[in-house]
Formats: sequence, C-alpha cells, structure tokens
Amino acid sequence: MINLLREGFVMPLGPNTETSLDTPDTPDPLDEEELSALDAHWRAANYLAVGQIYLMANPLLTEPLAPEHVKPRLLGHWGTSPGLNLVHTHLNRVVKARNLDAICVWGPGHGGPAVVANSWLEGSYTETYPDITRDTAGMARLFRQFSFPGGIPSHVAPETPGSIHEGGELGYSLSHAYGAAFDNPGLLVACVIGDGEAETGPLAASWHSNKFLDPVRDGAVLPILHLNGYKIANPTVLARIPEPELDSLLRGYGHEPLHVTGDDPHTVHQTMARAMDEALDRIAAFQHAARTEGAAERPRWPVIVLRTPKGWTGPAEVDGLPVEGTWRAHQVPLPAVRENPDHLRQLERWLRSYRPEELFDEHGSPREQVLACVPDGAHRLGANPHTNGGLLLRDLPVPSLERFAVPVDKPGATAHEPTRVLGDLLAQVMADTGERRDFRLVGPDETASNRLQAVYEASGKAWEAQVLSTDEHLERGGRVMEILSEHTCQGWLEGYLLTGRHGLFSCYEAFVHIVDSMANQHIKWLRVARRLPWRRPIASLNYLLTSHVWRQDNNGFSHQDPGFVDHVLNKSPEVVRVYYPPDANTLLCVSDHVLRSRDYVNVVVAGKQPCFDWLDLDAARAHCARGAGIWDWAGTETDLGEPDVVLACAGDVPTLEVLAAASLLRSHLPDLAVRVVNVVDIARLLPMEEHPHGMPDSEYDALFTPDKPVVFAYHGYPWLIHRLAYRRANHPHLHVRGYKEEGTTTTPFDMVVRNDLDRYRLVMDVIDRVPGLAVRAAALRQRMVDVRYRHHDWIRAHGADLPEVAEWTWSQ
Amino acid sequence: MINLLREGFVMPLGPNTETSLDTPDTPDPLDEEELSALDAHWRAANYLAVGQIYLMANPLLTEPLAPEHVKPRLLGHWGTSPGLNLVHTHLNRVVKARNLDAICVWGPGHGGPAVVANSWLEGSYTETYPDITRDTAGMARLFRQFSFPGGIPSHVAPETPGSIHEGGELGYSLSHAYGAAFDNPGLLVACVIGDGEAETGPLAASWHSNKFLDPVRDGAVLPILHLNGYKIANPTVLARIPEPELDSLLRGYGHEPLHVTGDDPHTVHQTMARAMDEALDRIAAFQHAARTEGAAERPRWPVIVLRTPKGWTGPAEVDGLPVEGTWRAHQVPLPAVRENPDHLRQLERWLRSYRPEELFDEHGSPREQVLACVPDGAHRLGANPHTNGGLLLRDLPVPSLERFAVPVDKPGATAHEPTRVLGDLLAQVMADTGERRDFRLVGPDETASNRLQAVYEASGKAWEAQVLSTDEHLERGGRVMEILSEHTCQGWLEGYLLTGRHGLFSCYEAFVHIVDSMANQHIKWLRVARRLPWRRPIASLNYLLTSHVWRQDNNGFSHQDPGFVDHVLNKSPEVVRVYYPPDANTLLCVSDHVLRSRDYVNVVVAGKQPCFDWLDLDAARAHCARGAGIWDWAGTETDLGEPDVVLACAGDVPTLEVLAAASLLRSHLPDLAVRVVNVVDIARLLPMEEHPHGMPDSEYDALFTPDKPVVFAYHGYPWLIHRLAYRRANHPHLHVRGYKEEGTTTTPFDMVVRNDLDRYRLVMDVIDRVPGLAVRAAALRQRMVDVRYRHHDWIRAHGADLPEVAEWTWSQ
Repeated sequence: MINLLREGFVMPLGPNTETSLDTPDTPDPLDEEELSALDAHWRAANYLAVGQIYLMANPLLTEPLAPEHVKPRLLGHWGTSPGLNLVHTHLNRVVKARNLDAICVWGPGHGGPAVVANSWLEGSYTETYPDITRDTAGMARLFRQFSFPGGIPSHVAPETPGSIHEGGELGYSLSHAYGAAFDNPGLLVACVIGDGEAETGPLAASWHSNKFLDPVRDGAVLPILHLNGYKIANPTVLARIPEPELDSLLRGYGHEPLHVTGDDPHTVHQTMARAMDEALDRIAAFQHAARTEGAAERPRWPVIVLRTPKGWTGPAEVDGLPVEGTWRAHQVPLPAVRENPDHLRQLERWLRSYRPEELFDEHGSPREQVLACVPDGAHRLGANPHTNGGLLLRDLPVPSLERFAVPVDKPGATAHEPTRVLGDLLAQVMADTGERRDFRLVGPDETASNRLQAVYEASGKAWEAQVLSTDEHLERGGRVMEILSEHTCQGWLEGYLLTGRHGLFSCYEAFVHIVDSMANQHIKWLRVARRLPWRRPIASLNYLLTSHVWRQDNNGFSHQDPGFVDHVLNKSPEVVRVYYPPDANTLLCVSDHVLRSRDYVNVVVAGKQPCFDWLDLDAARAHCARGAGIWDWAGTETDLGEPDVVLACAGDVPTLEVLAAASLLRSHLPDLAVRVVNVVDIARLLPMEEHPHGMPDSEYDALFTPDKPVVFAYHGYPWLIHRLAYRRANHPHLHVRGYKEEGTTTTPFDMVVRNDLDRYRLVMDVIDRVPGLAVRAAALRQRMVDVRYRHHDWIRAHGADLPEVAEWTWSQ
Repeated sequence: MINLLREGFVMPLGPNTETSLDTPDTPDPLDEEELSALDAHWRAANYLAVGQIYLMANPLLTEPLAPEHVKPRLLGHWGTSPGLNLVHTHLNRVVKARNLDAICVWGPGHGGPAVVANSWLEGSYTETYPDITRDTAGMARLFRQFSFPGGIPSHVAPETPGSIHEGGELGYSLSHAYGAAFDNPGLLVACVIGDGEAETGPLAASWHSNKFLDPVRDGAVLPILHLNGYKIANPTVLARIPEPELDSLLRGYGHEPLHVTGDDPHTVHQTMARAMDEALDRIAAFQHAARTEGAAERPRWPVIVLRTPKGWTGPAEVDGLPVEGTWRAHQVPLPAVRENPDHLRQLERWLRSYRPEELFDEHGSPREQVLACVPDGAHRLGANPHTNGGLLLRDLPVPSLERFAVPVDKPGATAHEPTRVLGDLLAQVMADTGERRDFRLVGPDETASNRLQAVYEASGKAWEAQVLSTDEHLERGGRVMEILSEHTCQGWLEGYLLTGRHGLFSCYEAFVHIVDSMANQHIKWLRVARRLPWRRPIASLNYLLTSHVWRQDNNGFSHQDPGFVDHVLNKSPEVVRVYYPPDANTLLCVSDHVLRSRDYVNVVVAGKQPCFDWLDLDAARAHCARGAGIWDWAGTETDLGEPDVVLACAGDVPTLEVLAAASLLRSHLPDLAVRVVNVVDIARLLPMEEHPHGMPDSEYDALFTPDKPVVFAYHGYPWLIHRLAYRRANHPHLHVRGYKEEGTTTTPFDMVVRNDLDRYRLVMDVIDRVPGLAVRAAALRQRMVDVRYRHHDWIRAHGADLPEVAEWTWSQ
C-alpha cells in the first residue's frame, strides 16, 4: 500500500469540510462480519477484474501461473477498476439493506472488467449470457472473452448488463444519470464520475442539472466523484487543488460533499459505508420533506468524494518505478507477463493477494460470504429493468393528426409556421402523458424561439431555482427542459430514452454540431444494442432541427450549418433516418412516425417561418409514406412519357424556390415538360443495398428518369446528394444546388441568391441543361440574369427583398 | 429603472461574500467629473447601440423620429448591450489610468452593436473602415450597415475591430481569453462571460484554465461574469442561485469574486470602478510576487460578478408587459416601430433619454467629455495589435527535416512510429522557440499516448496546481498543454493563434468530433478574415489526428470515427486542407508544410503504431509536393501504356493493405499490370474549380486512367472518395473500400477484414473488376476467400492475427 498522506495526497481539511466523515468519535457503521463480507466481495471483484485483463486459462490459479495461461494481447484498464469495485460493493450493501430500486452509471466505463466482474458475481451476467456460468468453466470463459476477438469490448458497453452508458467517450455520465432519474420518483441513480471525466465540458456543465430535478416527481441522483488522481498520463485538476477549494466548488454546484479518503481498505470500507448511509438518509429526508411536507426549498443533494489510489491493491512498483497510486496504473500495470518471468511472478502474487481460495469454492462459484451483500432479483444493479429500458417502454399516445392538420384546399393558398403547428401536437402529447410522465421535450433555451411554445399549456419548464413573479411557464416537475447546453440536453434525453421513455430534442440546426460526438456514441450504442437479443427496443432519439441555415436572418454566418445530416449519414444505416418535410402537414406526418418509432436516431429538419401549405393531410400522409414523389400539380407533364427536365427538391426553402422556378417555366416556356419531385426521406436516394429506405433503381429511374437533366435544390451541402445518388444511372445528369458556405446577416431571398439556389438561378440551370433551350430561351435566361442583378441593387438600397419575391404567391 | 431589490434580484450577502464591494465605508473611487465623463461615454455607447438596431436615417434625432427613419427589418440583440458598454467604458478608464496593454473577449458577442459603438467612439472603427467617419454622415452609415444586407453581421465578428471572438456560438470566450494570455506576460485579457454562455459545457470546463496560467510568463485573464439574468426566453441558472452559492462556485474554480450589483447607474459606476481597481491591484500584486519575489503559490485571481438588468436603460414596459430586466429585452424590445406609433414614440423617448445633444457635437462627433476615458493609439481595445495577430506573427523556426528523417534504402525494409518521429521534430521546434515562446502543443492528456513525448525534453507540461515527487514533466510555464477537455484545448489554441502565435493540436481521431462545432466556427472566422484586407494572416490551426480508427486495439467501437474529415471538407475550400501521410517521412514533410502555412485549418491523419517506411526524404518531399502520385516500385506496369487496374490508397493502414495486395498480385498474376497510386492530399481528388488543390481532369486521368478499374482503399468512410471524384470521367469504374462502422475491441488485421479493406479482399476486388480475370484467376480468388475464413477461426482461437499477416514484410 502506498502512503496517501505522503506528499499531501490527503489534503488538510479546510473550514468548509465539516462534513468530512473521518471524525474519530463516530461509531463504525460496519460490524466485523459485515466488514469482512464486504471486503470479500470487493476482493472477489478485484480478482475477477485482474483475471479478465490477464488470463485465458487457469482461472482459479489451481496450478502455478505459466506464460501460456496469459493472453497474448494484454488490454484493459486496471487503474479505475478497484474504485469501481468498491463503489459497486457498497452500493450492493445499501440497496440490499434499504431495499432500493437503484441503478448506477459508471462514468469511468473504461473499467469494463470491474462492472462485468460484479455482474458475474451477482448472477445477472449468467442470466444474460447463459454460457458464462458462475463456476470455473464460466469464469474461464469470462476471462477469455474480455477484449478478445469475438468476445466483449474493453469498456462498459451495451453488452454489459445493467449499463445505460458506454465508457468510451467521457463527459456524459452525470447527464445520463439525471435523464434516468427524471420521472422515476422511486429510483436512485448513483453515478461514478472519474476525475478525468470531470475535466470535460459536458460533465462540468451537467453538475447544474440539480436545478432541474424535482424531489417530488423525479428520483434521486447520487454523484460519486472518484478522485484516483490521474488520467492517462497526467494528474487531474480536481485531485490537485486543495480540498477546501474542491469542497467549495461542489457546494457551488449545489451539493453537500461527503469526503471519503484513504488507502487502508478496512478504514475506507467503514468511511464509505458511513458516507453511503449519510447520503441516502439525506436523500430520503429531502424526498420526504418535499413529498409529504411540501418543502419547496431546493435540496442540497449529497455528493460523495471518494479519494483512493489509482490501481489500488495492484503492483506497487514495476521494474523499479512506482505504479500503484500513479498514472502508470492506468491500463495494464504489468505489461510483459508472457515474456518476463518477474512480471509473471508479480502477477501471480498480485492475484493470490486477493486469496481466491477464500472467495470461490472448489467449483469456482462465489462463496456465501462473498455474496452476502448482493441484493436479490431486479434489485441487483446488473438486472434492474430501468437499464434495459425497452422492457418498461409503453407506446406513446400520439393523437390523431386530423385535429392538428391545417386545411389545404389547393396548394400554396395559405401559409403556416410548421413548427408552430407541430407545437400543438406536442402539447397534446404532453397533456396525454401528464399522468404517465414518460415524455419530455428538451432544448437549449429555444422552445419558444422554435415556435413550440404551445407545449407550455400542458407542461411548464422544469425549474427548481429561484422564481420571480415576472417569470412565465417555470414549473417544478415541468417536462419541458431548457438549459443553454446542447450537451446537457442531449445527455438528459439519452438517459431518459435508455430507461424506457420518450422525447424530442429541438435545436437550432447549426448548433446541433455541438453534440456531433454524442450523437455518434448514441448511434453506436443503438447499433450494438439492436444486435443483442436481450436488449429490448427503446424509443428513438428524435431531433427537430429548425431555425435552419436559410432563415438565420438575425444571426448570420455563424448560425448557418446544415451538415449534421452529413455527419449522421456516415453512421449505421439501420439506425439513422433523415427527413425534410416541406410544409406543416408533412411535418405532422413525419413527427407522428418518428415519435412512434424505436431504436432509431431520427433527424427532422423543418422551418419555423411561415411556409406555404402544399399538401393536405391525406396527400401529406401518402407523400411521407413514399418518402419521395412527383408533385404533378406543380409540373407541366401532360402525358405518360418522360419529362424534359426534373426539378427536384428537399427542404422547405428549396421546395419554395423549385415551385417558383416551375411556375416561371410554366409561364415562359409552357411547352417544356417539367416534373417536380419532392424528397422527404433523404435516404430514399440511396441504393436499397445501402439503407433500408433506399429505393430500387427501377423506382429511382421512374421518379428521376434514367437520362433527363435533374436540377436538384437541396437544403444542405449539395455534394451530399451526389454521395447518395452516385450509383444511379442518371447520375451524370444530376445537378445539385445547395448551401455552399455563402452567408451573412441578410434577407431570406438574398441567402438563396448568394448560394445559387434561387428560383431565377434554377430556371437558368434548366435552360443550360435541357438540349435546345440555350438558344430558344436565351431571352428568358437574360431576364433571369437581370433580375438577379436587380435583386443585388435593391436589397442594398432597401434592406428588403425585391417586391416580386417578397409578395410571390403560388398559382397553378 | 426597475427595482433590483424587488423580489430578491439582489440576494442577501452570505458569509462567503466578504469581498462584496458595497460596504458603505469605502470612499468612492470616482470624483464627480470622472463619474460624469464615464457616464457620458456609457450613454453615448448605448445611444449608438440603439441607433444601429433601429435607425437608417436621422441619426442624431435632429428632427422628430418618423417611420421612414427606421429600418424595415429590426434585427439585433439589445439585452446584453448596455452591460457590454458598461464594461467597455470601465475598461477604457483603467487601461488609460494604468497605461495597460489590454484586450477584451466579448463572450456575449450577440451584442455586436455595443462593441461596434465603442470602436466608433474611440476612433478605431474609422481607422479600419475610413468611410464610417466619426461624424453625422459616418454615424448614419454606421447605423444603416448594421445587420443590413451588404453591411456587417449582427454579432461581434471578424469584421469587428479589436475582436478575436465571434459571438455566435456560445461557450468559448474564456478559453479564447486564456489562449490570448499565454506567453503574453504584459497583456491583460478581460473576458465578459454572459450568464447564458456560462451554462455551456465548454465554458464551464474552461474556468479551470487558471491552473495552467503561469503568473510569470503569461499575462492575466480577468473574467467578468455578467449576470443579466436571462437567456433568450429563460432565467439563467447562475443568476437564480443564492449569491453565496455562486460565490462558493467561483472560489471553487480558484477565483476570488468581486461582486458588482445594481441598477442605479451612478452607484454601479462607482462600484464597478472600485471592482476594476481592486481586481487590477490584485493582479499586479500577484504578478509582482511571482515575478520578482519568486512566489510559487497559485494566485486566486479575481473575477468580477456584474449583476445588472437585461436591457438596462431600455423600455421598462412595452404593450403592458415588463421588458427591461426580463428576457423580453433579449433582442429588439420595441418590435413594431414602423407600424405602431406608440412604439415609435417610445423609441424616440428611449433614444433621447441618453441626451445625445450632450454627447455629440453639431457635426455628430463625440464631445470631449465622452472621449475623456478613452485611451490612445494601440491602447484602445479596438486597436490593440494582439487582436489582429498576423501583425505580430513571426515565421516559425521549423528545422531542416534531414535531421529527423528516417533512412530508407528500399521501401518497406524498416518500420517506425510516424508520430514518434514527428515528436523529435516538434521537440526541436519547442526548443528553438524557448526564448520566443510562441509555439504550444495542446492535447487532451494524449501527448505521450500519441508518441510525441520527445517534446518534454524541450518543454514540460503547463501545470500550476500541486506537484508530487512522482510526477514527471510538469512545469510552471510549460508550453505543452494537457487537459481532458478537447473544447478547452481547441479554445486555448484558437486564442493563441488569433493573437499571432503558432501551435498544434494532437487528438485521438474519433474524439476530435467533440470540437466539430468549434472547428466550424474557426473555419468560418478564417474564411471571413481572409477577405478583410486589414486582417493579417495568422498561423494555421493544425490538427494531428492519430490513435486512429484502424488501431483502436485497446478501446474498440466507441473510439472509431474517421468522419472529422468529412465534416471539415464541407467547409470553405480556401481554408480547409486534409493530409494522409502514409509513413514517417511523409508525415515530416506534411508537418513542415502545415506548420509554416497561414490561415488554414490543416487536418493531418497519421498513425502512431510502427509503420513501414516507404519513402526516403527526397521521395517523400516530391510525393507530398504532388499530393498524389504513382508508386511505380510497388506496381507491375512495364511500359508506357495504361495498367489493367489501379490500386489506390490514402492513409497508412490502407497503404499497407494495398501494397500487400499488390504484392500478392505480383506473385500470383505476374502478367497483370497493376498501378499503385498513393494520395496524401485528399483534396487533390476534387475538380480544380472546387478546391485550390484540385487537380485538372488531364492529371486525374493520367494518374487513375480514364476507364480502367480503380480499387481505392481509403482511411475513412468510403463514400467521401465518391463525393470528391464523382465528376471524373473514370468515376463509374471507381470502387472504394473504407471504414463502414464495423468494429470492436479486436486485432488490427481483424479490423480491416471486418470492413473489407484487407489485402485479400482487395485482391478479390481486382479479380472481380478486371475483365477476363474472373475465370482466369478463379483459383486465386478462392484462396483469398479461404484465407479470410481461416483468419476468422484463427483469431477466435488465438486472440492474435494469422502468422502470415503478423509477420508479413514488403518485398518487391
């Protein structure tokens, strides 16, 4: 054991740390028997973690350890594992003693061996994977499969029973924990936060989630900040500031810290048990006060600060360098066990230091004492159904669309703000889930800006901090969640969905890039989870991206980025869906679909500005069901032959420009056969081998023709369409317009002109591409050029769009 | 004025807030004359901010305000502007009084009108834009251009003199401020942080930057947390927690807070002046102690908490609803001035409340009193050369590559870890800038993991927190920066580069997605700045992406994502460059180029694992200069005709697999003419009209042939290559292999097999695509199928790759 007091690892307690638990006059919470049992469980878990990293045979050391018992590739993260095992052991104790419904989010999920070890000990692993039996043979398979080709990954992952959190990319544990706790008033969500993860932005922001947790309607989150002092190769910030400063930080986050510090196992067991008891007593008291006495003050929820050595109980020194208690314990402390007899001996000594013969019987099964702290059935952390949320999921009551659809007698005669229309539907969903409380809307302070404020009629905005009389719609237990952190919004929603509930994330289109990497990780989670038969499908993660690139009148260039779609379309096609509803009714139909769907990440891009109503509800339903279709009322095809040109569009603004271009062509070149195709479901452009929604070539050719010019006006970066359609026969004739990073604070029409997506440019594109038109329509082309110049002068003089554009209305 | 004490806007001071500045016994720092002058400057700035939002004529209200004086589209953010103006006014005072070298990062950059107003007042705006004169005509143009087509954006932006920070996407102000302060010991960097921005993850993480700021070698950062209480539509968290809790939070971040609270301008002026003096006195004392007395304790740097109403001095009520001091003041408080006579009257009253006749003379120029607080020349915040970093930039001393290149007598005879070789070069750069201190290396705790640890010989890792004797390479004033926050790394580096220095960001490839949106914003900044003649070119932002998708042996699926390249290639081609050096010497050549370059975002993807050396330095230089070329020593072309097939590759692992496939083909089909093409600079595949590096069709055809099958093994998502090359004549014959989201914790070769990028699959692809081979090479194809099956069984049995793969060496 290293001496933690050496060199100030343990800071002197400051004036703020009166809640430190080391005061000598408190009686020990554990008697000898319980202490011994907890320590046995911890040792067993540590033994199993080391075994997973190193062994492929001789799991119980029934013979002397030999090189051939050791894996050829030593992978895994030992450093965090003993700490995770300690937390799991002590969670077991309180869950059992208090009969809790509890889960744990393991932020340092790199310590996969620890969480897997605990699941195997409690039996949930064998229930999930029957071939990994709780005996010597199963232990051998457990060891061998870890980080082994064909086996399990090195992190906590979808494959891990009891997990809702992949431990690979750091930063999201605490927001996942809060997401799990919302609307689960009976649930305790423990959350281990590593001091490395604590340095990330998303984690730092998510501490303030406690201002959004209602002690009446939500469960409790118990953060356990585990300071083992090091990241991969560096000390951590929070472990190297004075303890009073850390204490002040946590109080500033709104928590009451409980400090557990040490490196002597028995002492730490006692202190940790006392901290757990104290924390759970306080949580119970806060909940009781709020639920039965109507206490309105925001609780100062407890946080446990656990300061133990990295790689605790592992090799103190290797090759003359200190390992335990340093960053060198991060991954595999003894790296050359197969080749180096000293390392082999050290490994054997290390494994035997846990006294496996006391922990496992002659069949390799955990002995009774080891399992004494383990709770039963669904109380086990690896078997709680909240961590396999699909088990608890109920269908969302999406109301009939008829009540919300806008009437459309003829296309383009009226206009609505699509997201406002959707807001009415969402308000109804919010109202209809008022009792069930399994639907939440999240967004970074943009619900009203995105025109969804009708939802406030059904639920206010969650808010547990101070309220002033001028405030509107703030509500304890509100299910609309607004914090100016896309990361926290995303993390909350993921945690909420993974525990079997429903939701939607509304976000400015440009700023959803802030959560690119989180979306990545969630898609990867779903892709793996879908292939695990025991993981039940969960509700899809639905993005509503609005305030989009074409209508950033107020904000300009920094707010223009339609590339999130490009990003997610690189990911597993079985998970990703992207929709561009062109008007209010199509947005309703798409939303109805995505809200009912399972195991997808759905991206819906829709405008919040007034937009012509093109399709009535029936037509919208049919169009969205097809995902792409001909709008014959907008084109000028007159027979069953092929048109001269196809004008295609995806997105509300491109659809407007295409219809205006079609209208110009009808007026000026009435004999030109123009087909208008609108695409809602962008993955339909892909070959059917590449995406479940991809259309067969025959259907593609029927829509877009095999060889006629296609002028495609697209909402996003134009080359995405080429990337989707490059295998189609007609690809050489596909010409795409879209956003090409030309923007500033300007008018809506100036935006499309700057990016060559405007109606006049589209008419020119048609003239340039249809054989024979170049000469015949030269005068029309010149008029198009002229009006674009006129636009240029006009907006600089008047600060507004050309009257003929601003006042344009659709007519057939 | 609203009453801030109403409803507890001002919290009672708690026990921790002993540094609050409201104690009645302190004498006022401002005499009547100075107070009056500061208030005049503030009123003038406020007047100019309102004028920019509303007016297109009658700027000085020399006639009654009429609807036609008002802009047709009212855009802008008033709410934050008076607070920014207050800060600017008081910064002017202290900069002048103390003769400071100071800049300010304006986090609430939505308040563009405020910063522009101040620049105009101090004269730096007119110096930058001579047509915006400091008189009535110039004021009229100043007003009109704001958020007007052809004018300037609504946010603080590259167009704004004195800015290094776009105010659009929130979260990065404080890390930018620290980046600016590093290695600028004489500089004060003030940083206004809005309480909205303070909720974001990146901002929350960046508070801990003070553990990396050296009081000796770095400048000072003065954060000013501006609590105006509201975001777009919601209260902010930090404004609605009790002041003692906020105070505790800031102390936990390592700061000493100075609270300035109020809504009476004269009182706030006095308190703010006192806070500024106190803060600067403390900063000076800390610097003095560290620089001349060798004090080693980390300073508790001051932070000012400025709590004033949102939209302060604007309309208190509009249409019967409270506006000043609420979220309704966020954008345009009077929305219908042109149509609603009441609004028009209110606007006129509002504008006249600043008493413009006292502020501007009959020519529209600011009066002497208004300018009394304004410093001179480069001391003005809008004219400090640090904010136009190219003015201060010196060429980086990149040493001769000969000293670092690895000897290559023949291709593939030796192997090196490319990033380790680069590490030696970077160490030399670090050493050679030891005096100049204008080069930093940033990374999220991965410098050593990425094999760049040689740099520690020249500079340690910046660290101002506690140091233990077991620590290595920690150093006060070190120029290697490691914190487990990609956001903070990126923000630091951006701030450092924008103030005229050099740097490199080394990052795990998958996790650079964490800063997707920051990269977006920096690329947008550069794209705009490049078009402003007065902005001098700055050093490029260089990413070294390593620990890449193909070699995540230890971590698996969550660590596999090569999509950052797809993301940045959507952005402005004049800014973005992407390189895939295939070995150590090409990495040196590419690094040499990017380190010397200006105004780019360079993405370099390179491996850290041992990799065959293919090219000696001369060949590497020639190859990198071309960006793509034929490796004739690897192919089997024998004459000047066209080959039967082209095997193309980009990336180190694909290059290895292509060379192995070429080797198999040479052995088994010796008469097949195989050409091997390696691509380093991926943008070369684009048409020359689409990217400055794009190659003409003639060159493309010469490399890839116009019509022969091309089997392209690519490092990333395969469709990116199609997106780049779809316009080429040979595109129908282009077949791309790449990463397709198939991965887990497994061996390197299993990764390429899972994604069909392995040598055997590539041979099959050749056989399937070269006419006539299907029959002739059927047996070879079957052998390829068989070996892939054998691989499958072997790794599951042995946990390691097939011996013939693991031991494969290149031979011609």
